[in-house]
Amino acid sequence: MAKVAVIMGSKSDLGAVKPAVSVLRSFGVETEVHVISAHRTPEEAHEFASSAKQQGFEVIICAAGKAAHLGGVFAASTTLPVIGLPIKTDMMGGLDSLLSIVQMPSGIPVATVGVNAGENAGLLAAQILGIKYPEIAAELAEYKQKMKDKINADDVAVQAESAEF
Amino acid sequence: MAKVAVIMGSKSDLGAVKPAVSVLRSFGVETEVHVISAHRTPEEAHEFASSAKQQGFEVIICAAGKAAHLGGVFAASTTLPVIGLPIKTDMMGGLDSLLSIVQMPSGIPVATVGVNAGENAGLLAAQILGIKYPEIAAELAEYKQKMKDKINADDVAVQAESAEF
Amino acid sequence: MAKVAVIMGSKSDLGAVKPAVSVLRSFGVETEVHVISAHRTPEEAHEFASSAKQQGFEVIICAAGKAAHLGGVFAASTTLPVIGLPIKTDMMGGLDSLLSIVQMPSGIPVATVGVNAGENAGLLAAQILGIKYPEIAAELAEYKQKMKDKINADDVAVQAESAEF
Amino acid sequence: MAKVAVIMGSKSDLGAVKPAVSVLRSFGVETEVHVISAHRTPEEAHEFASSAKQQGFEVIICAAGKAAHLGGVFAASTTLPVIGLPIKTDMMGGLDSLLSIVQMPSGIPVATVGVNAGENAGLLAAQILGIKYPEIAAELAEYKQKMKDKINADDVAVQAESAEF
Amino acid sequence: MAKVAVIMGSKSDLGAVKPAVSVLRSFGVETEVHVISAHRTPEEAHEFASSAKQQGFEVIICAAGKAAHLGGVFAASTTLPVIGLPIKTDMMGGLDSLLSIVQMPSGIPVATVGVNAGENAGLLAAQILGIKYPEIAAELAEYKQKMKDKINADDVAVQAESAEF
Amino acid sequence: MAKVAVIMGSKSDLGAVKPAVSVLRSFGVETEVHVISAHRTPEEAHEFASSAKQQGFEVIICAAGKAAHLGGVFAASTTLPVIGLPIKTDMMGGLDSLLSIVQMPSGIPVATVGVNAGENAGLLAAQILGIKYPEIAAELAEYKQKMKDKINADDVAVQAESAEF
Amino acid sequence: MAKVAVIMGSKSDLGAVKPAVSVLRSFGVETEVHVISAHRTPEEAHEFASSAKQQGFEVIICAAGKAAHLGGVFAASTTLPVIGLPIKTDMMGGLDSLLSIVQMPSGIPVATVGVNAGENAGLLAAQILGIKYPEIAAELAEYKQKMKDKINADDVAVQAESAEF
Amino acid sequence: MAKVAVIMGSKSDLGAVKPAVSVLRSFGVETEVHVISAHRTPEEAHEFASSAKQQGFEVIICAAGKAAHLGGVFAASTTLPVIGLPIKTDMMGGLDSLLSIVQMPSGIPVATVGVNAGENAGLLAAQILGIKYPEIAAELAEYKQKMKDKINADDVAVQAESAEF
Repeated sequence: MAKVAVIMGSKSDLGAVKPAVSVLRSFGVETEVHVISAHRTPEEAHEFASSAKQQGFEVIICAAGKAAHLGGVFAASTTLPVIGLPIKTDMMGGLDSLLSIVQMPSGIPVATVGVNAGENAGLLAAQILGIKYPEIAAELAEYKQKMKDKINADDVAVQAESAEF
Repeated sequence: MAKVAVIMGSKSDLGAVKPAVSVLRSFGVETEVHVISAHRTPEEAHEFASSAKQQGFEVIICAAGKAAHLGGVFAASTTLPVIGLPIKTDMMGGLDSLLSIVQMPSGIPVATVGVNAGENAGLLAAQILGIKYPEIAAELAEYKQKMKDKINADDVAVQAESAEF
Repeated sequence: MAKVAVIMGSKSDLGAVKPAVSVLRSFGVETEVHVISAHRTPEEAHEFASSAKQQGFEVIICAAGKAAHLGGVFAASTTLPVIGLPIKTDMMGGLDSLLSIVQMPSGIPVATVGVNAGENAGLLAAQILGIKYPEIAAELAEYKQKMKDKINADDVAVQAESAEF
Repeated sequence: MAKVAVIMGSKSDLGAVKPAVSVLRSFGVETEVHVISAHRTPEEAHEFASSAKQQGFEVIICAAGKAAHLGGVFAASTTLPVIGLPIKTDMMGGLDSLLSIVQMPSGIPVATVGVNAGENAGLLAAQILGIKYPEIAAELAEYKQKMKDKINADDVAVQAESAEF
Repeated sequence: MAKVAVIMGSKSDLGAVKPAVSVLRSFGVETEVHVISAHRTPEEAHEFASSAKQQGFEVIICAAGKAAHLGGVFAASTTLPVIGLPIKTDMMGGLDSLLSIVQMPSGIPVATVGVNAGENAGLLAAQILGIKYPEIAAELAEYKQKMKDKINADDVAVQAESAEF
Repeated sequence: MAKVAVIMGSKSDLGAVKPAVSVLRSFGVETEVHVISAHRTPEEAHEFASSAKQQGFEVIICAAGKAAHLGGVFAASTTLPVIGLPIKTDMMGGLDSLLSIVQMPSGIPVATVGVNAGENAGLLAAQILGIKYPEIAAELAEYKQKMKDKINADDVAVQAESAEF
Repeated sequence: MAKVAVIMGSKSDLGAVKPAVSVLRSFGVETEVHVISAHRTPEEAHEFASSAKQQGFEVIICAAGKAAHLGGVFAASTTLPVIGLPIKTDMMGGLDSLLSIVQMPSGIPVATVGVNAGENAGLLAAQILGIKYPEIAAELAEYKQKMKDKINADDVAVQAESAEF
Repeated sequence: MAKVAVIMGSKSDLGAVKPAVSVLRSFGVETEVHVISAHRTPEEAHEFASSAKQQGFEVIICAAGKAAHLGGVFAASTTLPVIGLPIKTDMMGGLDSLLSIVQMPSGIPVATVGVNAGENAGLLAAQILGIKYPEIAAELAEYKQKMKDKINADDVAVQAESAEF
């Protein structure tokens, strides 16, 4: 069974990672959630990252804000794909988090999603797993169809609502 | 054998995608390179994206600049992981490309790497494939070791060079 | 009779597009409102855009936020003028939406208005229609006069209000 | 015959507006080119804008950089559609020009294209005229087809070029 | 007696200009307050600016937000010093207003103060008048002394307040 | 005994400097708190800075917002290390404060911490003092251990909380 | 006779201040040029600023880059109007210089012109002096007329040049 | 004798750190220079940082660009003061490097200097050492005096040079 680690740098990021966890579990992906800090618990971070593959993890999601080094620190110690989830801050809406995660030096990529895009972090993990696990790819196809249906229903609703604008 | 599609929105992006292609091929990954534009050839884009899985592709890299919609347009029509490679522009060093790629709405992630980070786009594709193909994971581990050796050699060189600063 | 399509990428943009619809209808322009997503319903987007002219539309307004590809995706499949309305986000007040819409590659323009400038999107559509429909141009002239009268009235009011500053 | 005015705030913007003029003339649109400054020749600006419709112009393109008020000043005195072309500057790649043009207050839209996007300014003018002049719409359709052919040819060329990456 | 015009582009800016008016009147400067819009009442703007000197004004303060052209439009038609007061917006805290005012092309300066810095706009006007009217310079010297006294008093208060931090 | 001066440019910054004072005092560092303004009390600023060493201070923390000159003005008149604490503003979340403090010209460094990072300002002062006072270094080591314990406890708590996501 | 001080924070700014000096001297304004650094020669800065009025100066222009404190430091010690000229840097085209100068706290305005806008700094000084010295106001009116003539001549030239676009 | 470690994340940063090394050595501070990468050699980074104090280092300077995690990674494993030197990049002049370094989470400060401000990094290290080593403080005082003399000489030179502006 596919297994994903969802790491946050601070307990306060829990709300932002929740949609990642929820969507992965709804797809039947085993998902472990941890608070590990690149700066406050650097040894735990290194240990977790360097043993993640042996522990059976296949994708790691790292959520962090401001000078968000968590994804980079994890990517330094594993060859697993690491997804970076920038957390919103007061600094230009999280531009600090985003740039600290996405602008990685050559050799150590972090797969970055949008600021506070927890659900997209989970879906990207599922897409990655989907190349190996056909049942997850099938879940993604169904999810895509539901989004389409939702938009089509919204389209109908908006016709009515906007009639008297 | 693992297969990756590397798509660029304009032929002028060829230099920026070259390192992605090179690193993937050096790892033994079959890599097809295409120019397909989200805006100039929208039908080709939709057709390629929606049939990519059936064609045997497992990861798609989309390189584009400015209002860089290519990654999003591809991600809209496939459940494969799509990697977005923002191309440098004159607008704040490519911030337009970066935001146009990474800030995707909920439901349709694009795995974004840094501006002009072609090699990282290739490495991320390899990391994704590595969860399914152990030989690619092994190549990544070796690549990581070479980087480490290179830094250690640089460290020695810099001692000498900086002696008379 | 002139006909405009107002498309939003998500139902949550309805409040922002309302002023566009209202001003167009107040000028006697037939205005259809739709939710169509570039990423969730890409086929509907392509179908609508490529048949818009045949359906009698003359201008299309596309409202979207974040990595706002809707305008570009529509512009890719029509020769009608497409107006892009960037929706405010938490990322620097909508700079992501703005850049994703305005920085289109050469060949595929999107006529961009300010962030959350719904009324201006509607007025720009009317100005475009006004080159063909004199009655719409006349409505615009009257609208301009009313704005002028309003400012002149505000000027008088402010004299009084500011007297005891 | 359709007639467009292309105005630049400074003679130094001539290179940036050239593609707008060229593409319009290639479509058979009569195109007048002027240097008129919102700040150095405010009376000429007001006079030109307020009489533009009577002079037979149907679209006005205004190119300006830095605190780029030209488009707004023209839009203030006409009901014709005004296209704003922001000129690149040293300030964040022209973000000053872009924001000064696109962020117009409610009531006075300026249809903004990308920074230094001269060709797009011309094409947008053509799209606007195309709703009235079918021959211009036909030119645009042909132009779109040529872009598509060019991309398809580039796709073939890139296969060869990238073979030995 | 010294006379200053305080112009705002929209009645909604009244709160932001109030401190400018108050400080000027507290210094005995005659201060007229107007709503004149560069875009909605361009003729009034031109008329006011070009006759301001003859009306006895010596400094003009122009407050505007977003694509804030008011200061530039006034400066175009007068040789009096024009002070630009950028109004806060949702776009990066008013960076659009600031750049639209300060980045004036060579030949037409606007003396720009900080975003929403109404009091500083008034004080700058007073400093300008102070080179001609010694009594205003004296008011400024006294104002400076009061600020100094206030800071010194705050310093004492903070010692107490911070004692139990 | 080690002694630190914590200076703020305005009494309104007191809340932001409080964590700096608290953490220093908890480490047994004597900490004086002052309101001194680079602009309103320039002589007091110069006097304090140039005599700070003689008064027994070893580190100076300067908190200021917007065009935040306080740190630079202090650094100009002392050879003691000066820590700059940028205060959050409405301008892009305090980017104005940050750039005004960190981008010092060559020759006059200001040791800058993050926006509103009061605790980090205090900890940095302690780290600096720690090279001279072993007991402060010991306090820092203990503080680091407490942070680690806190993260580890949060990790356990999050397992439980996230179980039903 | 009117007298202006032009101060730069570093000799490397000389090229940027030259147009300010030239335009002032061409108007018959006595202009002294100095290198005084807010950070390297703080005492000279304070001494110059606080005695500037007694020395007969009526306006002070301060040019500086990066964390550009010069204008603020001068404004702290004089009631004369201080014009801030931000020098272009590598940090977003001088946004650091601009924000460090314009975002002054309440009570101490600096009249800011655009980045590297040396000529505008000189012209603003002339406009300020013009409220007291009619001959300078007359020079400004003539200067404005010459700009207008130049633009009108450029307009004619551009007609010819653009004929074969 | 005082000892400083100057670490760079990549050999390409050598030019930028050179002024830090030079100024420290000119003050008689023993200075070791290393290439250690937070991402390519994470174990070496952790090992160096956690043993730095025992090796006799008292200050660590970390130079890195883009998603610049080096300073944070070092600060995580030592209680010594860590100075962060952001390296210029193409992304808005190094804003990515700056934010990745300065916006550290609470508990782990990095003392940040300006982008490419190598000399300031060295001087800040010297200021920190100066609280313990009086001879370094004396060097700093002399350095400050030389800067002052240089500015005063420049002031004289500029008088001559600017005479014929």
